[in-house]
Amino acid sequence: MDELTRSIRRSVWHGWGDPAEAHPLSAAGWSTLRSLGIAGGPTSPPVALEEVLLPPIALGDAELAALRVVVGDAFVHTDHRWRVEHAGGKSYPDLWRLRRGDGSQAPDAVVEPADAGEVQRLLEVCSAQRIAVVPFGGGTSVVGGVGAAHGGEGAFTGVIAVDLRRMDQLLHVDQDSRLATFQPGLRGPDIERALEPHGLTLGHYPQSHQEATLGGYVATRSAGQASTGYGRIDDIVLGLRLATPRGELVLGGRSPASAAGPRLLDVVVGSEGTLGIITEATLRVARRPTAKRYAAWLLPSFHAGREALRALAQDVGPGLLPDVCRLSDEEETRVTLALAGRSGATLLRYGRARGLPAPVLVILVWEGTDASALKHRQSMSERVLHRGRGRRLPRRVAQAWEKGRFSGPYLRDELMGRRILVDTLETATTWDRLETLHAEVASGIRSSLEVDGGGVVVMCHVSHVYASGASLYFTIAVAESADPMTQWRDVKSAATEAIVAGGGTITHHHGVGVDHAPWLSAEIGDLGVGVLRAIKAELDPVGILNPGKLLPPSPGTPSPRPHITREE
Amino acid sequence: MDELTRSIRRSVWHGWGDPAEAHPLSAAGWSTLRSLGIAGGPTSPPVALEEVLLPPIALGDAELAALRVVVGDAFVHTDHRWRVEHAGGKSYPDLWRLRRGDGSQAPDAVVEPADAGEVQRLLEVCSAQRIAVVPFGGGTSVVGGVGAAHGGEGAFTGVIAVDLRRMDQLLHVDQDSRLATFQPGLRGPDIERALEPHGLTLGHYPQSHQEATLGGYVATRSAGQASTGYGRIDDIVLGLRLATPRGELVLGGRSPASAAGPRLLDVVVGSEGTLGIITEATLRVARRPTAKRYAAWLLPSFHAGREALRALAQDVGPGLLPDVCRLSDEEETRVTLALAGRSGATLLRYGRARGLPAPVLVILVWEGTDASALKHRQSMSERVLHRGRGRRLPRRVAQAWEKGRFSGPYLRDELMGRRILVDTLETATTWDRLETLHAEVASGIRSSLEVDGGGVVVMCHVSHVYASGASLYFTIAVAESADPMTQWRDVKSAATEAIVAGGGTITHHHGVGVDHAPWLSAEIGDLGVGVLRAIKAELDPVGILNPGKLLPPSPGTPSPRPHITREE
Repeated sequence: MDELTRSIRRSVWHGWGDPAEAHPLSAAGWSTLRSLGIAGGPTSPPVALEEVLLPPIALGDAELAALRVVVGDAFVHTDHRWRVEHAGGKSYPDLWRLRRGDGSQAPDAVVEPADAGEVQRLLEVCSAQRIAVVPFGGGTSVVGGVGAAHGGEGAFTGVIAVDLRRMDQLLHVDQDSRLATFQPGLRGPDIERALEPHGLTLGHYPQSHQEATLGGYVATRSAGQASTGYGRIDDIVLGLRLATPRGELVLGGRSPASAAGPRLLDVVVGSEGTLGIITEATLRVARRPTAKRYAAWLLPSFHAGREALRALAQDVGPGLLPDVCRLSDEEETRVTLALAGRSGATLLRYGRARGLPAPVLVILVWEGTDASALKHRQSMSERVLHRGRGRRLPRRVAQAWEKGRFSGPYLRDELMGRRILVDTLETATTWDRLETLHAEVASGIRSSLEVDGGGVVVMCHVSHVYASGASLYFTIAVAESADPMTQWRDVKSAATEAIVAGGGTITHHHGVGVDHAPWLSAEIGDLGVGVLRAIKAELDPVGILNPGKLLPPSPGTPSPRPHITREE
Repeated sequence: MDELTRSIRRSVWHGWGDPAEAHPLSAAGWSTLRSLGIAGGPTSPPVALEEVLLPPIALGDAELAALRVVVGDAFVHTDHRWRVEHAGGKSYPDLWRLRRGDGSQAPDAVVEPADAGEVQRLLEVCSAQRIAVVPFGGGTSVVGGVGAAHGGEGAFTGVIAVDLRRMDQLLHVDQDSRLATFQPGLRGPDIERALEPHGLTLGHYPQSHQEATLGGYVATRSAGQASTGYGRIDDIVLGLRLATPRGELVLGGRSPASAAGPRLLDVVVGSEGTLGIITEATLRVARRPTAKRYAAWLLPSFHAGREALRALAQDVGPGLLPDVCRLSDEEETRVTLALAGRSGATLLRYGRARGLPAPVLVILVWEGTDASALKHRQSMSERVLHRGRGRRLPRRVAQAWEKGRFSGPYLRDELMGRRILVDTLETATTWDRLETLHAEVASGIRSSLEVDGGGVVVMCHVSHVYASGASLYFTIAVAESADPMTQWRDVKSAATEAIVAGGGTITHHHGVGVDHAPWLSAEIGDLGVGVLRAIKAELDPVGILNPGKLLPPSPGTPSPRPHITREE
């Protein structure tokens, strides 16, 4: 469990996490990429920190003084570094802009409240003074969820980021009910370190585990890599406290289930900072696993893989199916094994020799406290894979996946440094539509990216399975065009339009942010959006909370402040 | 599965279900009740149907004509019988009033739409004409959820019940995704009969199964007796269509899970007809069980039973723990076995002889399609009961529970006919608070009922277990006082105040209705209530939908039309 409790430095401003954690591609890796048509351009490093251009601080002395009264002088930051470090999340567009020195999404100030009371008072001050507020946890949003949208002229006095890092305590453990109550600012490893002495785990490990925070998980309706076993955050959150401009909302926590009307907890979960700031959350925790089993298989096709995963979800079922359950499509299997070098080539040959010319890779992990139960679970699941004409690979293949499971985003930084557009996007749908949706989204992405005729990688995996369906997670790579932001917007549109047309959800676990907001009506209808607006108007009548996120722009919204570009 | 697919007649107006289904108490049963201090008064039958007093029909010819245009002449009913049959649900107060001929909660008319389009047009007509609308499924609410609150003078032109019995089709089965799409008006047995040819089951069997409808399940956030295995309705509903005065809201259905913002589906589930009328719902279904196993145990105490159930929920866990999992407290065990006559006395003697002077009864049922898996599940669970110093009883004890599982409410009718106040109420809380809450609610009820010094039965069982807690379901019986409505209100208040003070939810599966509405603020805060009001204002701006239900009366609300009492 060491990797899960080990904290790393707070993320570098121009990329993912701590660059010291990255494992740069070898020469052989670059040569594999070239063979896939991704050659990479000239090296293109980020600008120096001091070269990032920031908008002038819009807040005046009086407003800053009011903020300082709430949190203390030491916890209101207006210096260049703090502003840059909060000038966006980790989406491709956010990083692309920052690497070029465009700090237009920086807040005017960063404020660090110490507790729920200070958060509450901050919201009151900001409502009174029309200061926009961007709640900031780990800052790992890949959908533009934490950039400071300044709004049009005069919309707000200014924008602050409210960084919750000081609120990082495990407040209470209820062993009897297997519940733990946290402040929002614990990062993934902090959560696991705090629970370890109690023999417990949250079991929530998204790829952003090392940086993302508990409050961020809840606010964005997060799913982790082992959520097939432990449940998504929306399955395990039992109660929370939300500071809003209208006062505190305390929801749930009294019981595991209730029929006391609509479940408002499920309105706050996924509200992405637009309704309030989560100051406390109570979540289900599990016994810390003491045993683990791994399996890797090759199956004949994505269709066969989909059939196997469906059988795992429906027939092996909850409590028994693997905690981690992943299926790469043919393209992702090919690329993954190619990048793994010699050992990957051996596996591909092994598959071909056994009648699997274009195999798909399945990774399974079981964990728990009863070794014999794990063995039983594994044999139940592997029977399903056998029936799917699969071939078992050495378990080190699954262990290798686990070892590298938090490192994918570092590779993106490296590729961006060679002018390669890399992005991921995801959806989920019911089993009956899964294969069609997979094909149509991949085809939509390809059509958009292949306009320039260069090489394109579009690969996909399933990482979360449910009785009624599964997720699809696409990774794309292509050489940057002359206008990468337009290139990115085009591919995002093409993919999301294909998702909507194919009956998938616009996002399974990344959230809505700015990037998916234009399609929220496709998900919940204009009337549904109207309901969300009504809720927001009730809790945040001035509209200070995370403006521009989640909700589609309403007609007549002033356009945001233009990006800052240096003369080149 | 026969009992689950067998339809019975629509409920009699003055009591539960079809009186022909009742099994009246034997003389020995009455003598047992007397030994518990519940003697019963003189026989007190309901008035004749034609003696029920109804308010004059407030709707004029023009309004009735407008309704007839929407659904057709044959489907607008204003005759005495239809109005009486929709003059309330099945709560103790509802039935007490009706039995005495008080039809004050009857609607002016009952309307039966044929499809979603007609429902939509009805809501438009009613909004335009300020006609209140009570959605009506099975009419089994035990919390005053379907009475027609006429509001103060001039609040509404009139009130109609919208009975959904004509919308009773299974629309679609998706075997691949194990999903089924239904209209709202199917009653429990209709659902199971429709799914049977597909080899599927909904697995949702509340005590009201024979009368309650699918739409009602969803609207009231229902739980069934096997929900520990199959999941509550809120766990299994994946999508729905809601007709609202502002148009149709279509939510979910695209995927098993999503991060596309707040889950508005969870606002509609539990909205109890105050936001719209559910015209379609897609739910997870399961393979129809072909094998079943039963077990009954005696444990030494409620504490030991609570420990055993917690271990089942947490350590045996989802997918493996019993599908039905019930624990009666000492009092309920004593009363249940006493009412079972000789065989019950034998079991009590058996317990005493084995060191269990005041035992608690545990009933477990497993069901599935794989007989050997069931056996494995059973042995896992029974190991837990062994560890709890339990004694196994013959499995026919559990089978007898199952046989009688829908018949409890008939006994209430019989007792009401002898001037006995009988009611049930329920809550749920986390494991750490469960025993204290159990004791405090029981004590609150006793203090309220014992004022007159007569015999009182207050017994309780746990019927739903979760990793983090469980439900508590109380049954109370006492001789009616001179003013049973005040007696009932007092005990309801005492119980709910104890629930709120003890940290339980105000309702685990009965819903809010009128009876629990005064305590909704204790559950979600005034601000939470404000959010619900904002949502309602957005979807139902005129406020026609099920007025008086769910939301606590807002300050300045005109008081409802007084009850009609015959001169006596």
